[in-house]
Amino acid sequence: MEVQIAVAKINKYAVSESGDTLEVVERPNGGVSVVLADGQTSGRGAKAVSQMVVRRVIGLLAEGVRDGAAARAASDALFTEKQGKVICTLNIASVDLSSQTIVLTRNNPAPMFVCRGEQMNSIEEESIPLGTSRNVRPLITEFPIEPGLIIVHYTDGLVHAGKRRGLPMDVGATIRSVVEEEDPSPQMLADTLLAEAVRLDEDRPVDDISVVVVKVTSRVGDSVRRMAVRLPIDGIRR
Amino acid sequence: MEVQIAVAKINKYAVSESGDTLEVVERPNGGVSVVLADGQTSGRGAKAVSQMVVRRVIGLLAEGVRDGAAARAASDALFTEKQGKVICTLNIASVDLSSQTIVLTRNNPAPMFVCRGEQMNSIEEESIPLGTSRNVRPLITEFPIEPGLIIVHYTDGLVHAGKRRGLPMDVGATIRSVVEEEDPSPQMLADTLLAEAVRLDEDRPVDDISVVVVKVTSRVGDSVRRMAVRLPIDGIRR
Repeated sequence: MEVQIAVAKINKYAVSESGDTLEVVERPNGGVSVVLADGQTSGRGAKAVSQMVVRRVIGLLAEGVRDGAAARAASDALFTEKQGKVICTLNIASVDLSSQTIVLTRNNPAPMFVCRGEQMNSIEEESIPLGTSRNVRPLITEFPIEPGLIIVHYTDGLVHAGKRRGLPMDVGATIRSVVEEEDPSPQMLADTLLAEAVRLDEDRPVDDISVVVVKVTSRVGDSVRRMAVRLPIDGIRR
Repeated sequence: MEVQIAVAKINKYAVSESGDTLEVVERPNGGVSVVLADGQTSGRGAKAVSQMVVRRVIGLLAEGVRDGAAARAASDALFTEKQGKVICTLNIASVDLSSQTIVLTRNNPAPMFVCRGEQMNSIEEESIPLGTSRNVRPLITEFPIEPGLIIVHYTDGLVHAGKRRGLPMDVGATIRSVVEEEDPSPQMLADTLLAEAVRLDEDRPVDDISVVVVKVTSRVGDSVRRMAVRLPIDGIRR
C-alpha cells in the first residue's frame, strides 16, 4: 500500500500572508501527521495564531503525545494567552503506522469527507475551534489504513467561497464528481476543489483556503518516500 | 517564478527506522526551509539524534532565527548533551522571500551541487558535522532566486553507495546526465539519483539515503502552493 497526501493552498486576495498554517511531520513511532490550523481573521495576526498552534501541536506529536491530547494542549495554551478572544480551527490527519490506522482530529465547524469506493460520508458532528473555552474537546475519528480510502478536509475559505454572491460551494458534490472519475490522484482532487472555490469567488478568494486530501492506494512499488513542494513566488511581497 | 522542491528517501536495507530526518517548514517572513539531518550510526539511536537536531533547527527558524545561528545552536546542544561522542550532519536549503535568495547551510562532508543552465558546480569546501566540538561553523552559500537554478544535496548514503563493491557512485556525472535532458522535474532528478545508488548497492542500501532537489523555474501560473507526500507502507514494522 501507499499513503498519498496532497495539499493545495491559496491566500485571500491581495493579502500576502495566509492565516492558514500547514505542516507535515514524521511521527516518532512511524507514519506522518498533517497539521492544519486557521487563525481567526486574516493576515499577520491570524498567521501568528495558527503558527503558534501548529508549532505546539507538532512539537507534542514529535514527543509521542497522542493527537487528541496535543489538540487539547494547544487549545488550553491559546485560551490562557488570549482569554477566548482569539480562536483557531485545527485539523490533524495522522497516518499512524503503530496502530495501522488513520486518525482524524477535528476542532473545526467545517465538515470532513471520507470516501470508500462508491460510498461517501461527511463527518459533521458539531465541533468547536481551539481557544473558545477551557476543556475544548477534539472530535477523533479512526479508520484502518486500507486501499481505496480517501479523506478530505479544509479550512473555512472553502465553505465561504461564493457565498457573497449567493452561490455557495457544494463541496460534497464536487468531491463526488472527481471521485467518480477513474482513480483520481489526491493532488487532482485538492486542485479541483480549490479551483472551484476560487472560481466561485471570481478569482479573488475572500479568505485563505487550504485543502488536504489523504488517499490510500494499493500501489506496490519501491519503498521510497517522496515529497514535492511547489511554491509560486510571483506577486509575493518582497 | 516557482520554486519546486523534491525529496526521495529510503531506509538502510532491513532497518525499519531511518537515521535521516527531513522536515519542510514555512519561514515566518516568507518562504520555506528544507532541513535534513543524518545522525551517526543507524536505526533508533540515530533517529533520535537527527530528530532532535531537526526539531531544534525548525523551532528556531520558526522564531525568525537565521539559518546559520540555528545550525550553531543545534550543534552546541548536541555537543553539550553527548560531549562529542555523537555527531550529526545537517543541510538546510531555505527559500527566503524576504532576501529574495536561496540560502544553503551545510554541516556535512558530502558536497552539494549547484546547476545553472549548462554550468554545474560542486560546493565541497571542508565541512564538519554538528556536535563534533564547540564552535562548529556552518558553511553558508547564498544565491539570488532566479529561473534555471538547481540545487542538489543529500546524506552520505549516496556517497557510500556501491563502495563496498568498489563501484562508488559518481554523483556529479549522474546529475549532469539528467540535467542535460529536456527540463527534468526535480522529482525525476531526486528519483534518478536514489535509484542509481540503490542499484549500486544491489537493491540493499547499506545506509539510509535522502536526496533533496530544489529547482527554480520561470513558470507563471496560478498562485496556489502545493505539496504532495507519498509514503509506502508495505514491509514497515507494524
